Amino acid sequence: MTTLDDLLAPKSVAIVGASDNPERIGGRPIQKFQNLGYEGHIYPVNPNRDVVQGIQAYPTLSDISGEVDFVLVAVPAKGVLDVVREAATKKAKTVMIFSSGFSEMSEAGRRAQDELTRISRDSGVRIIGPNCFGVFNAAINFYPTFSSTIGHHIPTPGGLAIISQSGGYGAQLFVLAHQRGLKMTYWITTGNECDVNVAEGIKLLAENDAVQTILAYAESIKDGEMLVEGLEVARAAHKPVIFMKAGSSEIGAAAVSSHTASLAGEDVIYDAVLKQYGAYRPRATEEAIEVAYAAAPRIFPVGKRIGLASISGGAGVLMADAATDYDLNVAEMPADAQTEMKKLLPFASARNPVDITAQVVNDMTLVTGFTKLMLNQGKYDALVGFWASAGVVPELGSAICKALAKAMEGQDNKLFIQSLVAGPEMRKQFEEAGFPCIEDPYKAVATMAALISCGMAFAAGRPAIPDIPNLPALPEGPLGEKAAKKILADFGLPLATDTLATSSAEAAAAAERIGGPVAMKIASPDILHKTDVGGVKLGITGGDNVSTTYDEIIASSKAAVPNAKIEGVLISAMAADGVDCILGAKVDPVFGPVVMFGLGGVFTEILKDVSFRRAPVSPETALGMIDELKGAALLKGARGAEPCDLDSICDAISKLSVMAVAHSDNIESIEMNPLRALPEGCIGLDALIVKRT
Amino acid sequence: MTTLDDLLAPKSVAIVGASDNPERIGGRPIQKFQNLGYEGHIYPVNPNRDVVQGIQAYPTLSDISGEVDFVLVAVPAKGVLDVVREAATKKAKTVMIFSSGFSEMSEAGRRAQDELTRISRDSGVRIIGPNCFGVFNAAINFYPTFSSTIGHHIPTPGGLAIISQSGGYGAQLFVLAHQRGLKMTYWITTGNECDVNVAEGIKLLAENDAVQTILAYAESIKDGEMLVEGLEVARAAHKPVIFMKAGSSEIGAAAVSSHTASLAGEDVIYDAVLKQYGAYRPRATEEAIEVAYAAAPRIFPVGKRIGLASISGGAGVLMADAATDYDLNVAEMPADAQTEMKKLLPFASARNPVDITAQVVNDMTLVTGFTKLMLNQGKYDALVGFWASAGVVPELGSAICKALAKAMEGQDNKLFIQSLVAGPEMRKQFEEAGFPCIEDPYKAVATMAALISCGMAFAAGRPAIPDIPNLPALPEGPLGEKAAKKILADFGLPLATDTLATSSAEAAAAAERIGGPVAMKIASPDILHKTDVGGVKLGITGGDNVSTTYDEIIASSKAAVPNAKIEGVLISAMAADGVDCILGAKVDPVFGPVVMFGLGGVFTEILKDVSFRRAPVSPETALGMIDELKGAALLKGARGAEPCDLDSICDAISKLSVMAVAHSDNIESIEMNPLRALPEGCIGLDALIVKRT
Repeated sequence: MTTLDDLLAPKSVAIVGASDNPERIGGRPIQKFQNLGYEGHIYPVNPNRDVVQGIQAYPTLSDISGEVDFVLVAVPAKGVLDVVREAATKKAKTVMIFSSGFSEMSEAGRRAQDELTRISRDSGVRIIGPNCFGVFNAAINFYPTFSSTIGHHIPTPGGLAIISQSGGYGAQLFVLAHQRGLKMTYWITTGNECDVNVAEGIKLLAENDAVQTILAYAESIKDGEMLVEGLEVARAAHKPVIFMKAGSSEIGAAAVSSHTASLAGEDVIYDAVLKQYGAYRPRATEEAIEVAYAAAPRIFPVGKRIGLASISGGAGVLMADAATDYDLNVAEMPADAQTEMKKLLPFASARNPVDITAQVVNDMTLVTGFTKLMLNQGKYDALVGFWASAGVVPELGSAICKALAKAMEGQDNKLFIQSLVAGPEMRKQFEEAGFPCIEDPYKAVATMAALISCGMAFAAGRPAIPDIPNLPALPEGPLGEKAAKKILADFGLPLATDTLATSSAEAAAAAERIGGPVAMKIASPDILHKTDVGGVKLGITGGDNVSTTYDEIIASSKAAVPNAKIEGVLISAMAADGVDCILGAKVDPVFGPVVMFGLGGVFTEILKDVSFRRAPVSPETALGMIDELKGAALLKGARGAEPCDLDSICDAISKLSVMAVAHSDNIESIEMNPLRALPEGCIGLDALIVKRT
Repeated sequence: MTTLDDLLAPKSVAIVGASDNPERIGGRPIQKFQNLGYEGHIYPVNPNRDVVQGIQAYPTLSDISGEVDFVLVAVPAKGVLDVVREAATKKAKTVMIFSSGFSEMSEAGRRAQDELTRISRDSGVRIIGPNCFGVFNAAINFYPTFSSTIGHHIPTPGGLAIISQSGGYGAQLFVLAHQRGLKMTYWITTGNECDVNVAEGIKLLAENDAVQTILAYAESIKDGEMLVEGLEVARAAHKPVIFMKAGSSEIGAAAVSSHTASLAGEDVIYDAVLKQYGAYRPRATEEAIEVAYAAAPRIFPVGKRIGLASISGGAGVLMADAATDYDLNVAEMPADAQTEMKKLLPFASARNPVDITAQVVNDMTLVTGFTKLMLNQGKYDALVGFWASAGVVPELGSAICKALAKAMEGQDNKLFIQSLVAGPEMRKQFEEAGFPCIEDPYKAVATMAALISCGMAFAAGRPAIPDIPNLPALPEGPLGEKAAKKILADFGLPLATDTLATSSAEAAAAAERIGGPVAMKIASPDILHKTDVGGVKLGITGGDNVSTTYDEIIASSKAAVPNAKIEGVLISAMAADGVDCILGAKVDPVFGPVVMFGLGGVFTEILKDVSFRRAPVSPETALGMIDELKGAALLKGARGAEPCDLDSICDAISKLSVMAVAHSDNIESIEMNPLRALPEGCIGLDALIVKRT
């Protein structure tokens, strides 16, 4: 098993394509090794020079007599394969390839890259790149990167780690994090990912004790299973993974495909899976940096009750707005604590947001008194305070910081973010007292919401998942509605029962047995969209009507799909009124089987109000899928209706997800549409199973 | 008519409650006047001292022999009224009151504040405050404020103006804007607004030539009409109004009421009105500051086609995602321009986002070549470029700036925001070349979207509004459905016709005349929610059924509302299938009559998918209301349905809005629910008019 040290803590490094010019790509790392104090052996490889930047050089890797742990390749693409083979022979642990000209460039490049993958698999040498910007390990001053930004800024070793597919963007993340005062030991760019990829990188970082927070950037994930594993390692260790996933938009996804020559996968699935496994997905870079910053105290609140303190009523209102936007609970202070506050300052607002007013300038004990009451009586999961621009007046800022620290005594497991304008010195004072400082009060609350989502994901832990049984093989050939319903029903899913009528007389007889109005649907494994061919008639009453309708359905289906194998018409009782849902599963190219649930009609088709999870899921996880729907209220008894039986829906979601996994080699997609939710139970009125071809 | 100069450019100022101690509220402004170079006369007023901070003092305002333009009041609340009366007698133009203890404190305080309002109205003296932090006019070094922040930071005069109800938050806005390098001449806090309020302040700022951008903060607006006027003055002058409106959430709005003792008004209406009159509403402070910053070049793009250039494919993807989030159009480059780009650099992405790649480091002419093609051939309304952390390497940053400036030659009316990490010096270089610099590429695009929305609002100009006719008086007493329908139909709105049956026999006869199934509804001015009392039956066929149903409706309505005046039952033909909408109007306490349109059922009740405008509106404005609905697709022929007749809906919205204004003294609300939208026309199936009481 590879560890982070195997990749990033070499005792020796060879630079193939070493340049004497420290401005060139093959020269920069050597300059950095020497200037920044890397203490391992440095072996420049250059057939044309004996000495490179003052260090003895070697014509080839094989000419180096000592061991070489890490081989950095900075030669043109056409020479790369040979160098990597040589490195494998030399038993290097890691090869890192700056060179571009592989899958991002051409079909020939893609083939060469596949060959790199093969060499890695066969020999065991791990490869970073090609087409990457490099990596660093600040703990040992190891900076094999040609980024000019790194060197202009030298990181302070610490708990943040950055891993990025994109080199340019990875460098940007580094600079912004560094400027925000974040300490980081590891920085990795993975480029084209012929071997080491972002998913594995996250796992290796999560396993490393020096890493506390992981900031990742990717456009696509090569190994969904590995990502899930990495995220679970991070969750178990309570290390937030802040995951920037680019390509949320159609045009963004198209750009990903064009510039990485890889399938981006569906963004909604990424989004769901990242949430499912406890990662936090920011939209913007600054948001990512801010969450990483506020994660530094390693306190992750496990609840949404938020206390808001301010010296400006206006800011209190803005923070309450922000809390509502982020679905936090601005719970009221207990009545007796409010009375105590009013005793301290009659014209304060004591409810929450708590407004201590500008009066604090005259009496700093108010800060301690009020925030102490919020901490001890308010029982908030997390607090945010607003102190305006007090931080720019040094004596004022320091006094507030001390007053807050006093209130926090014995509460140092509580996260209290402070929103104030302050210079670096003042900020440092607050940070050392354990308070992250975020200027914008709205952003302070938004960042707290992110940390709360991390905390709740950590507390929830790895979700229990159902066992996957061995299921009997599917029947041969395409599956019609009746067959699909039987397969699902046999596995315990709730399906409407129906009778296959093969003549108009049989149809009438079936309808009579059922009594009341019936639903009639064409039965054919070759017709998937039955409504479109006039193959569905609902609420038919009376024997004659049923007979006529039978003939109409057969005729219009035959007319629409001339070669379809027609088995007859399915007759079933009309289901009771309820809320129509859609329940489905499909195989995602990145993450494998995923289960999908939504409300029917406009919710699915117009509002895209659908939730996904990687399968299999427990009924408990399924409940989360329902809750996140915008239209969830419809299932819970909105508009005076009786609430639907959520337990039965959760059970169906879970069962379907299990089945999708059990049959993932054979089934491409399953759909129960509509799944009608009722006050007691739910029932699939139609079913569709599409096999893999 | 008051001008900004009348308020903020006094030739003389008196400070009542002047203190010799520059740390006290009555001392700070005097220190600032002297230290920062205010050149007008300064008259400290203090009955106990002859000299205050080295300046001759006077026992009372009346003892000052010269004219006093501006009177600053810093005495306890109980003395304020007398001082203000004296100031009015002394013919001061402006009185500004720091003192608190008015409407924010108690009922007695509110009464005292009302008296201040009366003095202002009667004498013509303008009053700022009470309970305010002060104002400044940096052009004449006039800083009558006790904010300690202002003084620590001295503004550079320039085009930004800040106006804020909240003093603490206003000071915060000042500091953040100042730190972002924004130049501003005017800063106003309005406090309790007994006279001058944020709405009028916006108008005065918009009318002032020195002001280019207005950054406003308010929790509630006292004069909706004045705000609309101010926004239209600003729009006509192409001055963006960046309006932070706090209290978007229920809990935020409750906090506003508790700390300002005023009704906050409905946030959705504020939101709609701000958009309608061209203001930009940010959520977070940083967003507000960023938009103000990027507005400095005064270029406001009038279209959503955005060109995205980058040296990192990843950042290009993130920018495309951001553009999609903000509903911008990442239009593809023309094919021939793409070919030209590929000639410049074969492995570039030429589509849009355009990826010039890190190759620019080796060849800066690529920057000029690519961005020139985007400017000249791409015909984008606006551009954003991403240059990673190039700005931290001075020679690289400068080279990129020069290369971009070269491409811009002859295009200096185009806004090109640059996203890069850079120190203050480098940023200044870019800004002087006309490029706003925003580190985060996502935020750069979001900010551009804000400027585009300003540009489009400026270009659209003041919307045409229909004339308001004199309408005949309404009938006396409450109005039943039949009366409401008649009033609306008489004004030209489309309503279903119906027959009032006063017996079961009349009902059956009416149904027979209509033919086909009918709708039957209880007719009573006292029953507003007919469905709830069993007063509505739909699709009734056959004379006997109609008779029976008549009796049932009468019986259940009587049972539910025993004293209701029952007129009979309305019989109408069942309307054709269509999309049910809701169209209504009501009187908002801040902005007067507003019109509302939404889709019926779950869209209105669960998703709150409803749009508002201040009435009256033209059919063109009404179309904007439809377009902004999440479910708008349903009206446009989603799911294979025939598109609805939008013209007829727009016409109905406009007509209803006109009627609401014409009757705004008498009508509290009007509702057509459902208004059924059809492929041809639309028709109100029910109507309700509630009179003002």
